[in-house]
Amino acid sequence: MTFEERARELVAKMTFAEKMAQLKYDAPAIERLGVPAYNWWNEALHGAARNGTATVFPQAIAMAASFNPELMEKVAVAISDEVRAKYNAVRKTGETQIYEGLTCWSPNINIFRDPRWGRGHETYGEDTYLTAVMGTAFIKGLQGDGKYRKTDATLKHYAVHSGPEGVRHGFNVDVSEKDLYETYLWAFKYCIDNAKPSAVMGAYNAVNGEPCCASKTLLEDILRGEFGFDGYVVSDCGAICDINNHHKVTENEAESAALAVNNGCDLNCGTAYQWLKTAAALNLIDEDTVTKSVERLFTARFRLGMFDEDCEYDNIPYDVIECDKHRALNRQMAQEGIVLLKNNGILPLDKSKKIAVIGPNADSVKVLLGNYNGVPSIYNTLLRGIIEESEARVNYAMGCDLCVADKALGDKSREAVACAENSDVVIMCMGLDPSYEGEEGDAYNAEMSGDKPDIELPDLQRKLIEKIVALGKPIIFVNVTGSCINLAYEDKNCDAVIQCFYPGAEGGTALADVIFGKVSPSGRLPVTFYKSTEDLPPFEDYSMKNRTYKFFKGEPLYPFGFGLTYTDIKENWIDENTAIITNTGNYDTNYSVLKYEYIPHKSLCGIKKIFIEKGQTIKVTF
Amino acid sequence: MTFEERARELVAKMTFAEKMAQLKYDAPAIERLGVPAYNWWNEALHGAARNGTATVFPQAIAMAASFNPELMEKVAVAISDEVRAKYNAVRKTGETQIYEGLTCWSPNINIFRDPRWGRGHETYGEDTYLTAVMGTAFIKGLQGDGKYRKTDATLKHYAVHSGPEGVRHGFNVDVSEKDLYETYLWAFKYCIDNAKPSAVMGAYNAVNGEPCCASKTLLEDILRGEFGFDGYVVSDCGAICDINNHHKVTENEAESAALAVNNGCDLNCGTAYQWLKTAAALNLIDEDTVTKSVERLFTARFRLGMFDEDCEYDNIPYDVIECDKHRALNRQMAQEGIVLLKNNGILPLDKSKKIAVIGPNADSVKVLLGNYNGVPSIYNTLLRGIIEESEARVNYAMGCDLCVADKALGDKSREAVACAENSDVVIMCMGLDPSYEGEEGDAYNAEMSGDKPDIELPDLQRKLIEKIVALGKPIIFVNVTGSCINLAYEDKNCDAVIQCFYPGAEGGTALADVIFGKVSPSGRLPVTFYKSTEDLPPFEDYSMKNRTYKFFKGEPLYPFGFGLTYTDIKENWIDENTAIITNTGNYDTNYSVLKYEYIPHKSLCGIKKIFIEKGQTIKVTF
Repeated sequence: MTFEERARELVAKMTFAEKMAQLKYDAPAIERLGVPAYNWWNEALHGAARNGTATVFPQAIAMAASFNPELMEKVAVAISDEVRAKYNAVRKTGETQIYEGLTCWSPNINIFRDPRWGRGHETYGEDTYLTAVMGTAFIKGLQGDGKYRKTDATLKHYAVHSGPEGVRHGFNVDVSEKDLYETYLWAFKYCIDNAKPSAVMGAYNAVNGEPCCASKTLLEDILRGEFGFDGYVVSDCGAICDINNHHKVTENEAESAALAVNNGCDLNCGTAYQWLKTAAALNLIDEDTVTKSVERLFTARFRLGMFDEDCEYDNIPYDVIECDKHRALNRQMAQEGIVLLKNNGILPLDKSKKIAVIGPNADSVKVLLGNYNGVPSIYNTLLRGIIEESEARVNYAMGCDLCVADKALGDKSREAVACAENSDVVIMCMGLDPSYEGEEGDAYNAEMSGDKPDIELPDLQRKLIEKIVALGKPIIFVNVTGSCINLAYEDKNCDAVIQCFYPGAEGGTALADVIFGKVSPSGRLPVTFYKSTEDLPPFEDYSMKNRTYKFFKGEPLYPFGFGLTYTDIKENWIDENTAIITNTGNYDTNYSVLKYEYIPHKSLCGIKKIFIEKGQTIKVTF
Repeated sequence: MTFEERARELVAKMTFAEKMAQLKYDAPAIERLGVPAYNWWNEALHGAARNGTATVFPQAIAMAASFNPELMEKVAVAISDEVRAKYNAVRKTGETQIYEGLTCWSPNINIFRDPRWGRGHETYGEDTYLTAVMGTAFIKGLQGDGKYRKTDATLKHYAVHSGPEGVRHGFNVDVSEKDLYETYLWAFKYCIDNAKPSAVMGAYNAVNGEPCCASKTLLEDILRGEFGFDGYVVSDCGAICDINNHHKVTENEAESAALAVNNGCDLNCGTAYQWLKTAAALNLIDEDTVTKSVERLFTARFRLGMFDEDCEYDNIPYDVIECDKHRALNRQMAQEGIVLLKNNGILPLDKSKKIAVIGPNADSVKVLLGNYNGVPSIYNTLLRGIIEESEARVNYAMGCDLCVADKALGDKSREAVACAENSDVVIMCMGLDPSYEGEEGDAYNAEMSGDKPDIELPDLQRKLIEKIVALGKPIIFVNVTGSCINLAYEDKNCDAVIQCFYPGAEGGTALADVIFGKVSPSGRLPVTFYKSTEDLPPFEDYSMKNRTYKFFKGEPLYPFGFGLTYTDIKENWIDENTAIITNTGNYDTNYSVLKYEYIPHKSLCGIKKIFIEKGQTIKVTF
């Protein structure tokens, strides 16, 4: 029997009430049918998340910066091993609680169209192709290719979702058909075609008037119709209640729940589906519709091997969690996600130099972890990574707070100046953290609800930077953010500029590997770095006009795809699908060869990441 | 000219208004006299504090547990080197801001009479002699023995000060003369006699009706009269305003300020002394009295070399801050401050055992730092120390929150059980942290204002412990607190019990050194570990009756001075001042030989810490 057949047979034994209850994310046990309680909510954005110890890989945006889909798939394999190991360990308790399950609500493949969006760092950046191939690699790694699915991947947030966070629960996006298909849906279709994700999560917002989690157009016509998606759809958390509370499209929760189920939203994160009984009593839904949704959900559970004894993943041991192999893989991904933006020759840095490490992000654990994260049992902050690799003394000063000055301890910049004066070279670790740019309700940037007001570093950081620049010491500037920041001043006044996204538990080690030249940097920007907030269209405007490298008419500070190495690479394209790559410099390096189309506009359409030794020539074919 | 003469000459050139302004802790510059602005407030309880990077030694109570005054003096030398290095680095800016100066408001030599006091971990415990010899060693290390003073030490809080935190600003202690001299003042007198501290800080509370910071009895009669103290007195921060606001002994700030200065409180932390001008206008103080205080303060500044070019400490370089030597010293102090309370033979632990490390304090940085702390640029949590020393796999789970359950992430104990089930042995790192037991305004234990309501671990920790005990795995229980906790259950149900006070930046390394047997433990309890809160007299009661090992009539779980090693030590006292110590076991160890008097009651009166090899015999003479 197929998984579908087994699901149909099991669901046929359920009462209507039992079926409705199974559409809630915290699905109850049905003991008489041997169905254990199962909580569908789990997260795995860049590691097994919110369930204690795990290998915390770099945040999604940092992994995108690696421009290395093969490495991404290896990372996702490691993640799903850890999710499985955790599931296997608790399964014998007879239930699976929140964040313990096999159904991962990752990846986030929204297009990072505006740098102000607080959740942009959960995405793979601004480009549809990069997003699509990274998403595909991630899904394949998560789901495996066995008889059973290893874990389920969930594409989110479907669709046209990228802020503002503060109004997301009632926001309507009017989007043109061109932008919809060319930009906002493109990666969803690509991933469905190439990786068969088990699930899709609906977004909070409405598109052209229809709330996404109950949109006939988006779910029935496009997703299941045009795209041929055959998995299950889950709502974002609380999104169904938003339909009546914020979108005002329905009158009450029963109507919202019915509208969602009738349009194909099978599973509810939140509380709305407890009103399904009321909806049924009011004849707003019929049992056949509910049955179809429950069958989809149980097909998934059968396909995950939850009701079998021969699942090939049941014996993944607890010891894979944060094992040495995963830690090594994490370090590699962190290295490849670091982007070198400027270098006057100071890098790689001589290990005998006395270093001042300055900045609020230098010893921050938060910036390692990003959001939607697990907990590493061992981690290396940027500062610790530098201290452990340096062969000389390292002086550390926080220098200033991240964005709001805590004056209780006096003027922190005085220590920073002393540190710099007593050192040969300064490494500044500035930027933001995931409590400043993040999700609504998560970040303390209250006015913007997790979004950034602009693309500037906070004032108190700017003042510290100017004070240190004034000392005349060589400066390596490390910008630690999940998004574009205006780095024009740093580009002009510092000797080197490094973009370090939220780099994971091994972030400090990886940064030190790059700074001291153990590896040549090979990351590239997955987003455009603009020079000014003035360059951006209004944040609420979802038109792609004048946005991202494809449509921006101005001159960026650092373009999408930009990233230096420690060597010189010559690309010689002998035809549109073949490039001869030569390393004419003095370092071995990883290098992503990027293929672009130019009609109707410049557009990435191919990525091959290679390792090339100094003096070597490699022919790359797409 | 002596420092006193130079001070007198300089102060003679000041106007009355200038003199009054110099009694504020943030003393302004007097440019025409070449006097730079100087902020008197600095802290150095267990490292240069609140001024950025420093070697963060174990909290005071942990250093007391070392029962090693010689090592304490070395630590204090290191601390004063770092304070000086920081001062030297900023001095050229022409002013010395808060926490940058040479006048350290440490040590805290209050008697930790009741385990509920939140600030008890800032002290050297419950015994007067241990407090006195540790305080003396600390002062000597801080002040040096050169031509100039290296830094100033300040004895605090004078006097009879140990909670409750919530009412400290208006609390009056009625104390008998016996308890006052025998317990509460004893260490003050000893330190003054043996180490000549530069300063004394008055307490918030009143004693027998007189607010301490303006007490004729305490300051004039006893401190300067009987004890012959010739330094300066500083108020606790805001304590002078308390005299009218909370003690209600005066009507307003001008009266409070006058009362304090007239009774010998030279320097004011807070704002009260800005009313000295008003007090002078009202004839509540005269210029001669103010002059005397200013002379004391400038004597101190001259003695610190602030107005000279030949001070032997002016060239202490920035590089001493957190230098390798200090880190090694820190590790040693952390090792010696760990107390082994029970061991059924499981310790030292075989490095090849697979370990589950469980508990909210396992990866806590807060517990390393204590309060009144600096910032380490590199530190090892208990978890990290264990991971780095273990030769097998370590599984980590937080297991529960410290005291208030955050249910957003589900039931954390499930992961802890999985960890334990997948390991050979469990190390539980439980206890409190300095945000739970601490100073008024500092700790979140709101009801008690930083004090503990009882001596029990929080309920959610107890539940986790019972759950893990039920698994039947061997358990090494590490209690991380700054105070006594009822460990009767753990003593009964765990294979080993370790008391780890807040152990400083190298705490995890030191704990691993002890657990895996790199060193034998040698710490001893500086406080009695009671079995029940019922054993304690009312917290507000300052009578020593039935308190501490000297007067407690019940049976403690672990007595004051208790602490196991990995070897067997025989003490043979051949006369009251001579002991023959023999190591008959299989480990080399440090060992504190304690001498007690028994009349009129058991009372510690001698400490000699020795290193004794296995098989060795050492004669110790007091």
